[in-house]
Amino acid sequence: MGHIPTLQSLIAGRWHGAASHTPLHSALDSTLIYHTHAEKIDFDEALTFARKTGVKTLMRQTFQERAAALKALALYLIERKEELYAISHLTGATRQDSWVDVEGGIGTLFAYASMGSRELPSSNVLHEGPAIALGKRGGFAGTHILVPRGGVAVHINAFNFPIWGLLEKFAPSFLAAMPCIAKPATATSYLTHAVVKMMVDSNLLPDGALQLVIGSTGDLLDRLGGFDAVTFTGSADTAAMLRANGNLIRASVPFTAEADSLNCAVLAPDVLPSDPEFDLFIKEVAREMTGKAGQKCTAIRRVIVPEALVDAVGERLRERLAKITVGDPNVEGVRMGALASMDQHRDVSARVELLARGNEVLFGARDGFKPVGENVASGAFFSPTLLLCRNAMVNDAVHDVEAFGPVSTLMTYNDIDEALELAARGKGSLVTTFATKDPALAAYAVPIVAASHGRVLILDREAAVDSTGHGSPLPQLKHGGPGRAGGGEELGGIRAVKHFLQRAAVQGSPTMLGAVTGEYVRGGAVKESDLHPFRRHFEDLEVGHSLLTHRRTVSEADIVNFGGVSGDYFYMHFDAIAAKDTQFGQRIAHGYFVLSAAAGLFVSPAPGPVLANYGLDNLRFVAPVAIGDTIRARLTCKRKVDRNRTDEQGRGQGVVAWDVQVTNQRDELVASYDILTLVQKRAVDE
Amino acid sequence: MGHIPTLQSLIAGRWHGAASHTPLHSALDSTLIYHTHAEKIDFDEALTFARKTGVKTLMRQTFQERAAALKALALYLIERKEELYAISHLTGATRQDSWVDVEGGIGTLFAYASMGSRELPSSNVLHEGPAIALGKRGGFAGTHILVPRGGVAVHINAFNFPIWGLLEKFAPSFLAAMPCIAKPATATSYLTHAVVKMMVDSNLLPDGALQLVIGSTGDLLDRLGGFDAVTFTGSADTAAMLRANGNLIRASVPFTAEADSLNCAVLAPDVLPSDPEFDLFIKEVAREMTGKAGQKCTAIRRVIVPEALVDAVGERLRERLAKITVGDPNVEGVRMGALASMDQHRDVSARVELLARGNEVLFGARDGFKPVGENVASGAFFSPTLLLCRNAMVNDAVHDVEAFGPVSTLMTYNDIDEALELAARGKGSLVTTFATKDPALAAYAVPIVAASHGRVLILDREAAVDSTGHGSPLPQLKHGGPGRAGGGEELGGIRAVKHFLQRAAVQGSPTMLGAVTGEYVRGGAVKESDLHPFRRHFEDLEVGHSLLTHRRTVSEADIVNFGGVSGDYFYMHFDAIAAKDTQFGQRIAHGYFVLSAAAGLFVSPAPGPVLANYGLDNLRFVAPVAIGDTIRARLTCKRKVDRNRTDEQGRGQGVVAWDVQVTNQRDELVASYDILTLVQKRAVDE
Repeated sequence: MGHIPTLQSLIAGRWHGAASHTPLHSALDSTLIYHTHAEKIDFDEALTFARKTGVKTLMRQTFQERAAALKALALYLIERKEELYAISHLTGATRQDSWVDVEGGIGTLFAYASMGSRELPSSNVLHEGPAIALGKRGGFAGTHILVPRGGVAVHINAFNFPIWGLLEKFAPSFLAAMPCIAKPATATSYLTHAVVKMMVDSNLLPDGALQLVIGSTGDLLDRLGGFDAVTFTGSADTAAMLRANGNLIRASVPFTAEADSLNCAVLAPDVLPSDPEFDLFIKEVAREMTGKAGQKCTAIRRVIVPEALVDAVGERLRERLAKITVGDPNVEGVRMGALASMDQHRDVSARVELLARGNEVLFGARDGFKPVGENVASGAFFSPTLLLCRNAMVNDAVHDVEAFGPVSTLMTYNDIDEALELAARGKGSLVTTFATKDPALAAYAVPIVAASHGRVLILDREAAVDSTGHGSPLPQLKHGGPGRAGGGEELGGIRAVKHFLQRAAVQGSPTMLGAVTGEYVRGGAVKESDLHPFRRHFEDLEVGHSLLTHRRTVSEADIVNFGGVSGDYFYMHFDAIAAKDTQFGQRIAHGYFVLSAAAGLFVSPAPGPVLANYGLDNLRFVAPVAIGDTIRARLTCKRKVDRNRTDEQGRGQGVVAWDVQVTNQRDELVASYDILTLVQKRAVDE
Repeated sequence: MGHIPTLQSLIAGRWHGAASHTPLHSALDSTLIYHTHAEKIDFDEALTFARKTGVKTLMRQTFQERAAALKALALYLIERKEELYAISHLTGATRQDSWVDVEGGIGTLFAYASMGSRELPSSNVLHEGPAIALGKRGGFAGTHILVPRGGVAVHINAFNFPIWGLLEKFAPSFLAAMPCIAKPATATSYLTHAVVKMMVDSNLLPDGALQLVIGSTGDLLDRLGGFDAVTFTGSADTAAMLRANGNLIRASVPFTAEADSLNCAVLAPDVLPSDPEFDLFIKEVAREMTGKAGQKCTAIRRVIVPEALVDAVGERLRERLAKITVGDPNVEGVRMGALASMDQHRDVSARVELLARGNEVLFGARDGFKPVGENVASGAFFSPTLLLCRNAMVNDAVHDVEAFGPVSTLMTYNDIDEALELAARGKGSLVTTFATKDPALAAYAVPIVAASHGRVLILDREAAVDSTGHGSPLPQLKHGGPGRAGGGEELGGIRAVKHFLQRAAVQGSPTMLGAVTGEYVRGGAVKESDLHPFRRHFEDLEVGHSLLTHRRTVSEADIVNFGGVSGDYFYMHFDAIAAKDTQFGQRIAHGYFVLSAAAGLFVSPAPGPVLANYGLDNLRFVAPVAIGDTIRARLTCKRKVDRNRTDEQGRGQGVVAWDVQVTNQRDELVASYDILTLVQKRAVDE
């Protein structure tokens, strides 16, 4: 046996540790593969580095720039993915299991890079508007901003997804400008170590943005403050232990827990064995039982089926499980690998024993379990195990004892409400699958099941063609459930970034709110300018640049012509008799005429920097425009976002939103909206 | 002395308790006014009643119906406000102090009634969309819903706002269909008792929606589960003690704390004594020191001013404080009343002593303090007290010790960054006031200060005309700050309702997501119908009712005519030379023409149930429409909200949003948007 490497922590920009401490073993054959390091970590130094260097370097970038850095990082890692697959194999994972961890993790970086670029500003203040008027004289308004907290994110992860677990937490907190101290579960920390080393070697991250703790967190949590944050994925017991930390409580440190829970799959009462949904249900359960050898927080632990169908379901599941070859994932045909360690094997065995009390074992080790491959006798392989509980309404263990391996319990219900009650008996879970072909049944059941589950997958033949499956948290959708599942929320698109930002209400004059949010707020000072704002390049345009147009008197001929062009002969515009009975008492102009005429008022016809009006938001027709009314528009630059994009010729451009107010001769607002444009940057020689 | 009433708890629909226990005294003259009851409360009974009866009766109503109930309740209470003012006087409050509690509290009910009606659906599923496509074949999408949790909200309140404190927590949790168990601070629980009695007597609340605990919470918190929620307002110490409850931690019970904190006011370096902002700052500080005798979580404890101006500020504040008459609020001219109890008086005195160590007392009891009124010698009156700290960067006590009375410390800074550092030294506060006349300075400072403060008031001459002041949390804006302030969020508009709901991701086919969310999701099954959907009354219209229109070929003449009507001669539509150089390579139709022509395609011209198209959201011009292209529109009923409104003739109407997709001859989407309409209900005889 050769030299056993010692995993090092990354603290304050230096790799730390040399002496060996805890031995780590391959899941496949229990050979010694790494040691953790014995040297203590100075967490004061780590936190000081994160707070002084990390926060400062991260805050030098904007949200948009950090999103771009995430994308570059994702591209860097995806090129090196095979190195990670090779190490992942040691955890007992199949290629498919590793795909979830490796490419799922890197995919999460891509997703946050993309969402950050689409949804976040090119500054460090995220405006969560709209601003609300708070007084009658227009001098006072309120709104909300989200800003970086100036603190550190401590991400504590489980052993099952050493890469995804880090990256799905790192991506949103990085966008939020929080330096990260990552603490992977020791058993598989060698894989997190590998990806962190890649991330550091990429030189794509600002100094201090990422540190890695191999081994114990020591007094780290005792040193955190209210501007820091802790996220945790792992067992409910450990979550409770960490959450009770006196310092975290006293300092109100945000603590997000995502705990393994007793997720379920429900076969709805409308599904017959002849329906495609029945097959889909069987496949989903078998896949979730055995994927990653059942070591997923989201795995299906409880299979809730109609009493009348329990034998059919049991039979089909047994058949399916019998076909799954377990062993060294490098061997052709192997579909399920090993548990992560022999410790896990002992733990799962003990829990299966608990679960089996009073219940039948429909499928399990007794059915002649023998993993394939060489030297697998000392590996942490465990047979898929299916139990049957016929009295689930009065059996607590099946809703409470989680065997974190390829283990599920089949249970029966008499009617839909009993099925929903069983689902809720998990006291809060991450996800449930509800297989049905009846939209009305889904409309009834899903809101009830949603109260106790963080995610609900509705499985039917229509969804099946594209379904990403019960077990896969997606970056766009919330991951985390109430109660036993920890009560936390991760992912869910930009929500996750917001969780790492601090929300503050801001009150003041519209001018001040405009300055703080970087967005024009109505009533605030505008900058009138001789040059039409549409003739300014992106760089030359300032929020608040404004144009008050000439006027236009709306005539009956306009209504007639607009009807002719649009084909819209609605009675309110064309039928004097019927229009008399409306709330307006007379014919009025088309709303879309007002919108079109306003565009005619503020257009700057010759080619210029404004490339396209690609959209419009929040249009409200506030008051009618009658024949003889005279309208004008005020167009004000509301928001600029530099996404650092270029057109096909390499010419830069940015997104500009404009506030439009159309008023009548009495200065009353008649229409109000935002228009969205792409505006060119200056050419290099301009 | 007459009979001293015993305050009763309201448990399981019955008033409970008769024997006297803790004596409660008037703040004005320390006379005994009430007793709490001695009988223990059976919290199992209370929770069972809330869970079985309360949840069920609340869920029988929709969000819209609960909003209407809140409005009726607010109207009922506002008519009886004088009864509450009379009792409030015993807490030592002036009329103005009581206004904040009584009318501020009832105003919060009105505000949530109104926001609920405007923003929540007429069902019990709140769709937080948009739905996102999750596959390439259109069969699978994801979105989020928020649903009632099925649990109980325990609201624990502070002594200073016995009415507002209850109602600002009750309103959003009631909208969220959570039964409430209210636990006011014992010292002023008689006022909460009075308003709860009114609420119950109104018969406007469903059974089980509200219970009241006078005295200890006993084992209440030990009995909660993950679907319940606890909110707390009070001291940081008590918040930490409650949060550490083992059951709350194990069950991941959501716990929201709003703790008193060392809020500050910063006089920015640009403000000169001759500026109106200087006067505004002095007034704000003096008012916040003395309003409610300084017993507000939001009161200004730290007054941070430029070194050069500290004497001027100190002098002006002394003058102003000297003019404030303290005493029995019933005496004419009294501007500040008493602390809530003699216990509070002792506590505040002790903390002032701590704060005064090493600091100057600029104003305080030594200046000849004597409250006015009869029998006030035994009242809990306390002099406004202003301290001066000249070394705030190295003094911890002034940032840490809170005297919960009319007590503030003046402190100095050398430059803006030092001012911001001092502000953050409070380790998280509810609110700060930043007085400046410079928008650029606000743009720099406010995002920094926002990281450690839940709310920022920017004070300038423009805001002053309408400002609601430093100390007033508003229903529309978030209340709560990080760190020492508890890390919680209350209010903030509909956000507060969402905090009491459970968010779940839902994945499935568009048809299933449509059924669950109550909103049409693109790609889902539509209901084609012979009758034009615009000819259906609100009741007869179903989500999914859809119309695919006839087609229209767009010609050059359309562009020419549309330019003539709108006045929009943008080169992209009219200049063949310039249009050739665009990304489209040719002239294209106006986007607003496409919008107008689509309206012409789906309009139903004769009078009918669709009364008005009052707005449009999320318009995106996805692809250009060239001369010769043929367009058509699909109009689908997307969402219905019954706000239970009627027009001036008493005819009912509802809000209907329609999904519009405009496609070309290749079935490519060219424009996409939602239109908003008001749709009439059937007449009684229809």
